[in-house]
Amino acid sequence: MGEPLRVGIAGLGTVGCGVVDLLQRNQELLARRTGRPIRLVAVSARDRGRPRPVALDGLRWHGDARALAEDPEIDVVCELIGGAEGIALELARRTLAGGRHLVTANKAMLAHHGAELARLAEAREVALGFEAAVAGGIPIVKALREGLAANRVRRIYGILNGTSNYILTVMRESGRDFAEVLAEAQALGYAEADPSFDVDGIDAAHKLALLAALAFGGRPRFDAIHVEGIRHVAAADIAYADELGYRIKLLGVARMTEAGLEQRLHPCMVPKDAPIAQVEGVFNGIVVEGEDAGVVVLEGRGAGAGPTASAVVADLIDIARGLRLPVLGVPAAMLADHRSAPMSTHRGSYYIRLMVVDRPGVLADIAAVLRDHEVSIEALIQRARNPGQAVPIVLTSHETTEAAMSAALARIGSLAAVLEPPRMIRIERP
Amino acid sequence: MGEPLRVGIAGLGTVGCGVVDLLQRNQELLARRTGRPIRLVAVSARDRGRPRPVALDGLRWHGDARALAEDPEIDVVCELIGGAEGIALELARRTLAGGRHLVTANKAMLAHHGAELARLAEAREVALGFEAAVAGGIPIVKALREGLAANRVRRIYGILNGTSNYILTVMRESGRDFAEVLAEAQALGYAEADPSFDVDGIDAAHKLALLAALAFGGRPRFDAIHVEGIRHVAAADIAYADELGYRIKLLGVARMTEAGLEQRLHPCMVPKDAPIAQVEGVFNGIVVEGEDAGVVVLEGRGAGAGPTASAVVADLIDIARGLRLPVLGVPAAMLADHRSAPMSTHRGSYYIRLMVVDRPGVLADIAAVLRDHEVSIEALIQRARNPGQAVPIVLTSHETTEAAMSAALARIGSLAAVLEPPRMIRIERP
Repeated sequence: MGEPLRVGIAGLGTVGCGVVDLLQRNQELLARRTGRPIRLVAVSARDRGRPRPVALDGLRWHGDARALAEDPEIDVVCELIGGAEGIALELARRTLAGGRHLVTANKAMLAHHGAELARLAEAREVALGFEAAVAGGIPIVKALREGLAANRVRRIYGILNGTSNYILTVMRESGRDFAEVLAEAQALGYAEADPSFDVDGIDAAHKLALLAALAFGGRPRFDAIHVEGIRHVAAADIAYADELGYRIKLLGVARMTEAGLEQRLHPCMVPKDAPIAQVEGVFNGIVVEGEDAGVVVLEGRGAGAGPTASAVVADLIDIARGLRLPVLGVPAAMLADHRSAPMSTHRGSYYIRLMVVDRPGVLADIAAVLRDHEVSIEALIQRARNPGQAVPIVLTSHETTEAAMSAALARIGSLAAVLEPPRMIRIERP
Repeated sequence: MGEPLRVGIAGLGTVGCGVVDLLQRNQELLARRTGRPIRLVAVSARDRGRPRPVALDGLRWHGDARALAEDPEIDVVCELIGGAEGIALELARRTLAGGRHLVTANKAMLAHHGAELARLAEAREVALGFEAAVAGGIPIVKALREGLAANRVRRIYGILNGTSNYILTVMRESGRDFAEVLAEAQALGYAEADPSFDVDGIDAAHKLALLAALAFGGRPRFDAIHVEGIRHVAAADIAYADELGYRIKLLGVARMTEAGLEQRLHPCMVPKDAPIAQVEGVFNGIVVEGEDAGVVVLEGRGAGAGPTASAVVADLIDIARGLRLPVLGVPAAMLADHRSAPMSTHRGSYYIRLMVVDRPGVLADIAAVLRDHEVSIEALIQRARNPGQAVPIVLTSHETTEAAMSAALARIGSLAAVLEPPRMIRIERP
């Protein structure tokens, strides 16, 4: 049995306590699998007196998390505080600069400062583990950096936020609207009081920045991601999607195109029988299209104490076993600064829902605008008849460019017979 | 850039040529990801003159694969010959004993000799990679040994053979019988002339032995697996499964029970909406139930040149990066010799199909036998009426033991009104 790996944990919220619990409960198992004990020796949190579901007897307590970075009896710091800046970032920098390993679940920090922290870790020859930062219990970081590392990735896409997937799932099952389902999810504790990070796509975009960096060997660039959340997805869109053979999912998608690296996070319609369409409720799912491996799908719980702790401790196991890899799959000094493809060059199919006055010639006008922008119609639903009143028109397009579709929609939206701003959802095919 | 990793390949069939192609095509990508070139230097195959889809110029040729083990200019041997014994095993032993790394796609060899080869590799402090031996392009070995290593595994199950899953999928879609679909699959090249390894479950059982070893830290024990193939699955069973809300899949299942480690490979009915039920055609899928991570599902291509080469080269990348792990997740000397749970102690629900004479009292007799064995009926289908003639009775049971069900079926099979041996398929719930 080798020397113990000595661990300090910063942050004792749900995830921090989950890690403490896992390390205590599986002590023997972990020692057998790594050949040395993984020993929790110190913790830090703001409020020492707060009741917690785990025993902290015998552990050193640091009132200031940053003190963990200077504790000479610690080999690895687990940063479980959160936040892109502030104490978390300071702790991360100090830990790595001091030549200690860092494990973090902090997707926001890495999406913004990942390249800098990777350089720091590699310069000091220490590990920076972040399996817990993306998709909780799903070992996707390891899959991309190691398991699928022989492949050029063609595209990677996934459901990266459990709260918004839960809301979309309940909307579909119940036929209710976004606001109502969100309120219920908040009452049940599945959504935060301020749901913006989840439903506006920010949390998922942080994760997409990391996945894209791993898949394409570039530095994480949150700023390069086109982000739209799910607030504008209506019950009507979900019903039409069903009728057209689709489900609506909030997807993060990254692919290399001729115009550069395309990174986008927005609601998508996906064919009902696609594996990603089956990922429901709070589950996360990720599809990697490798040039050689083909399509690989991973699905599991993206959040919660158990799944996140499983990922944090997997990183500790790697460190205990002596694994030292380039943090983002290639040495930080070699990370590419990929040209970012503007959204206008995106190619794909589109779903459009319009509310129009039911009178002769309206459809002809709309069709003419689409033709003028070289957008061809794949399917069209205009069922209700309500002369002189408002009726919906729903259509899907064949593949076109975002630029053409945007221009067409701007023109359509300005037609007198079109009563509301057009609703558009991109279609993503497996 | 570090020293090149020098690779020799034994076996230039579909997979061997796939690895050659990948190493040549992605040379630069691999060097960037590992920090050193992965250089193919020697190959071996039986017939040097045979036309192959890859260029072998400048590579040393060994007529006898075993010579690779003694080639001083080789760091890693890729054994892609196959077969549990013979040259493959000899090459594996000599390579490891000589202090060289081994990468293999040979599930049969590892299912039978995995513990011995792991001991040998660890004694010489070299790597033994076998990602390609299980589920092709899906990085499941890495997921179990590393990504999910913090977890106690509750159960692992999966579709591990693409050929049999393809046959079951086509049977369901077409309503045709096994023999007909097999013949078609053979004509299309999806099934071997001798299909036994695939359709009798042997190939999948080899993989299950490896997954169970990784999940539960024991030595691989092919001999402890209860194996049944898909030959006895009738078109009628598939239709009844559909009616009852199930799909039939050939699953390998391993779980720890009070009676010991249960390992079984047989057709199962799984609920239609379970993720594993969605894995269709030649795809493989694996579900890991971790105590902390929860349910994690992995799906992808289980065979073919690309996916298998992707896995072989992933192992080469690990070796080039200096990763040295216990081959089976815990040091070979610490592998448990788990007690093997006899099939009679298996607990689960069952699907039964009987062909009986349609006359009064038959159902009462069958129900009485089940009651006497404490098997309770969950659902029953007896639709056709054909007085005095043969009609099917289909039922599903609540949870019971294999021992009780076997005894009841033996008794039911001996009833005069029961015309054919009862057909039984186990139900596996997510």
